[in-house]
Amino acid sequence: MSLIDRILDLAALPAGALPEPALAMARFSLFDWLVCGRAGIDEPLSGKLRRLAEEEAGNGTASVFGGAPAPARTAALVNGATSHALDYDDTHFGHVGHPSVAIFPAALAVAEEAGASASAVVEAFLVGAEASVRIGMALGAVHYNRGFHQTATAGAFGATIAAGRILGLSRAEMRAAIGLCATRASGLKSQFGTMGKPYNAGIAASNGVECARLAKLGFTSADDGLAGAQGFLPTHSDAPDPDAGWDRPPPGTFFFEDIKYKLHACCHGTHAMIEALLTARRERPDLSLDSVESLHLRTSPRWLAVCDIKAPRTGLEVKFSYNWLAGMVLSGKDTARDDTYSDALAADPDLAAFAGQVTVEGDAAVTDMQAEGFLKLADGTQLPISHDLGRRLPEAELAAGLRNKSRALLGDDGEILWQGLEGLATLSARDLGRYTGA
Amino acid sequence: MSLIDRILDLAALPAGALPEPALAMARFSLFDWLVCGRAGIDEPLSGKLRRLAEEEAGNGTASVFGGAPAPARTAALVNGATSHALDYDDTHFGHVGHPSVAIFPAALAVAEEAGASASAVVEAFLVGAEASVRIGMALGAVHYNRGFHQTATAGAFGATIAAGRILGLSRAEMRAAIGLCATRASGLKSQFGTMGKPYNAGIAASNGVECARLAKLGFTSADDGLAGAQGFLPTHSDAPDPDAGWDRPPPGTFFFEDIKYKLHACCHGTHAMIEALLTARRERPDLSLDSVESLHLRTSPRWLAVCDIKAPRTGLEVKFSYNWLAGMVLSGKDTARDDTYSDALAADPDLAAFAGQVTVEGDAAVTDMQAEGFLKLADGTQLPISHDLGRRLPEAELAAGLRNKSRALLGDDGEILWQGLEGLATLSARDLGRYTGA
Repeated sequence: MSLIDRILDLAALPAGALPEPALAMARFSLFDWLVCGRAGIDEPLSGKLRRLAEEEAGNGTASVFGGAPAPARTAALVNGATSHALDYDDTHFGHVGHPSVAIFPAALAVAEEAGASASAVVEAFLVGAEASVRIGMALGAVHYNRGFHQTATAGAFGATIAAGRILGLSRAEMRAAIGLCATRASGLKSQFGTMGKPYNAGIAASNGVECARLAKLGFTSADDGLAGAQGFLPTHSDAPDPDAGWDRPPPGTFFFEDIKYKLHACCHGTHAMIEALLTARRERPDLSLDSVESLHLRTSPRWLAVCDIKAPRTGLEVKFSYNWLAGMVLSGKDTARDDTYSDALAADPDLAAFAGQVTVEGDAAVTDMQAEGFLKLADGTQLPISHDLGRRLPEAELAAGLRNKSRALLGDDGEILWQGLEGLATLSARDLGRYTGA
Repeated sequence: MSLIDRILDLAALPAGALPEPALAMARFSLFDWLVCGRAGIDEPLSGKLRRLAEEEAGNGTASVFGGAPAPARTAALVNGATSHALDYDDTHFGHVGHPSVAIFPAALAVAEEAGASASAVVEAFLVGAEASVRIGMALGAVHYNRGFHQTATAGAFGATIAAGRILGLSRAEMRAAIGLCATRASGLKSQFGTMGKPYNAGIAASNGVECARLAKLGFTSADDGLAGAQGFLPTHSDAPDPDAGWDRPPPGTFFFEDIKYKLHACCHGTHAMIEALLTARRERPDLSLDSVESLHLRTSPRWLAVCDIKAPRTGLEVKFSYNWLAGMVLSGKDTARDDTYSDALAADPDLAAFAGQVTVEGDAAVTDMQAEGFLKLADGTQLPISHDLGRRLPEAELAAGLRNKSRALLGDDGEILWQGLEGLATLSARDLGRYTGA
């Protein structure tokens, strides 16, 4: 079966056919996305996009993080960028992209306009996210390596499908929407380190709203915008593989179940070590900078060039410093809070002293989602530590981590949001929209 | 010098440094673009885009062909697609793209908002168009052959630069605008034959407004979005050549001077033959279906698969039929009018009879812009015919052709528009905007 037909089948799955484990993760993603969006409101780029939206004005049918309601296309643009501003949102490693920031803004904006339910938003998001991961896998690593940003490119298709599902597109209309997205989707990695990176998420979301709306209005487009002649895959990948995402996982299972959340406001390459040390502290609450003499860490060699800054000079550099972060965990500092990473922290004498006791070793047998090693305690004993981010967390543990992150970023508002979403089944999309306010 | 610096230099050229022959062509393009936009108002896709704009509403700072004023980003989207709906707008063969439909909508929308002059619109368009041709040449034929639509991709950069010039961007801001465009630009040829093709022009125009506005608001982006690492050129072309557009033409001359206009509402591959026959008729007004026994035409072999339909069944097929079109010219039918090409015309017995007297031969020595051959008259004499579209027309001849086209498409309104633009130096952008009304 062709990729476009498989994707159209996926887009049309009835709500009852969506796997519950994937839906559960989609609900976590909704919470995490709203937290990241709220936390991004004061970022400079978010204000600039709100300014553009305010100058254009228009029918305010869709909520905007920290701003006045706007037309759906515009709200999606602002919200996509705002929620990706801190780079603290979820990641899928199947194709390597950030699904929530590209897809939720499109689904929510269109759903508010249409008066849909909050559950419809979650279902449309899930279907769009699963489609984006599978399209991203078809584009392949060569697409990413050539310079394209999957969050923006594969993400635009996910946003289109999610928005199209909310609008109730027929199969033919959804095909046209995907065809339009093929000519509209864009996004380059060369934006990394600039406001262009979060902009890419907004681009994807806004493209999704526009393509779905135009298809609903009867726009025609290429029959197969994906793998067809000069479609998105052959033009944007040197080795597209339309079948890549369809032999796994077992039928009835979604790749989306493997979505990963950032629970610490620092480089993803340090998260396995942080989790390993947090587990050790849960088992041995007496562990501290005083009781630990040294840490011996083994990590994937690829991270050594990324997050092994031995003597960070700023709070930003601390985010990329194993030896500093290890001391922070052992001294109980909250690694989930963005404001923990102050420049003063880089000059902390206790952390500096402990940093000298940390040894980091590259080990090709350790994957880039794992951390291995041991602590040597003051009493001479060795305590092994280990963590694998690839392993799924029990739901309760994941919930606790996300709630902790939300409190770290939003204070009490984080908990209010969590409790509000517990009644998701009774909420409308417009109720969700109200949570975008500061 | 790097491509980005060359483009930034070009974007900042003072009005007085713009070559007058290129400005003269830019003024023709403005007229022709307004004619095409007005003529496209009733096309279905134009109505659908106006509907999207009306539903969003917002501050109507920019004029819309046949619709209510809208915010600049939206107006550019609608106007780009509307003016390309008939595929009757100008073409540049340097990179092969349609400059006016991508760039004028962006320049005009931003200029109306800013209260700029009509001359500023023409100057900004010219600089943007020249930049787009040169960026398109750097992307090269491989870009087009891979499946990208230069009108949309190179066009988006032209639109960004034109809008940025109207907004008075500093060099650093223009650099950021181009960087943002690198991650925003898109457009595939696989849309050809669908509403997605004119949509591509609207995408380019709207992207230009958005990227220029965000740069003005202080958005940051990649330092070199063009030829830099994972910039637009290396990601979108397998053999980019940043220097391609800079050894020719002589300094002080613009490639834009070679812009070409469609003066007949049929396939471009037939235009050289039509012009050759029109020239023959001007010299010999007695030429008619009665006085001509046969036509022997030599054309570029590449056109044989495109516009040599021997027995057209519909008006649309007549547009791709040498032998039908030849008879139409000899019987004085107006090939500039879109409504000339009726289905009844395909059943015309006189044209069918003459069609049997037309021989079309592929000749590799004839370029795809040329037509060669001879008419055999009833009295036995042979009359050579010849035309080369690559040759520039004298200004008066071009003006006459464009005015004839405008009358064919718009009736008296075409002449009113022509006369209105004769006072261009005294007009504002908002005055121009008023010409988008039906």
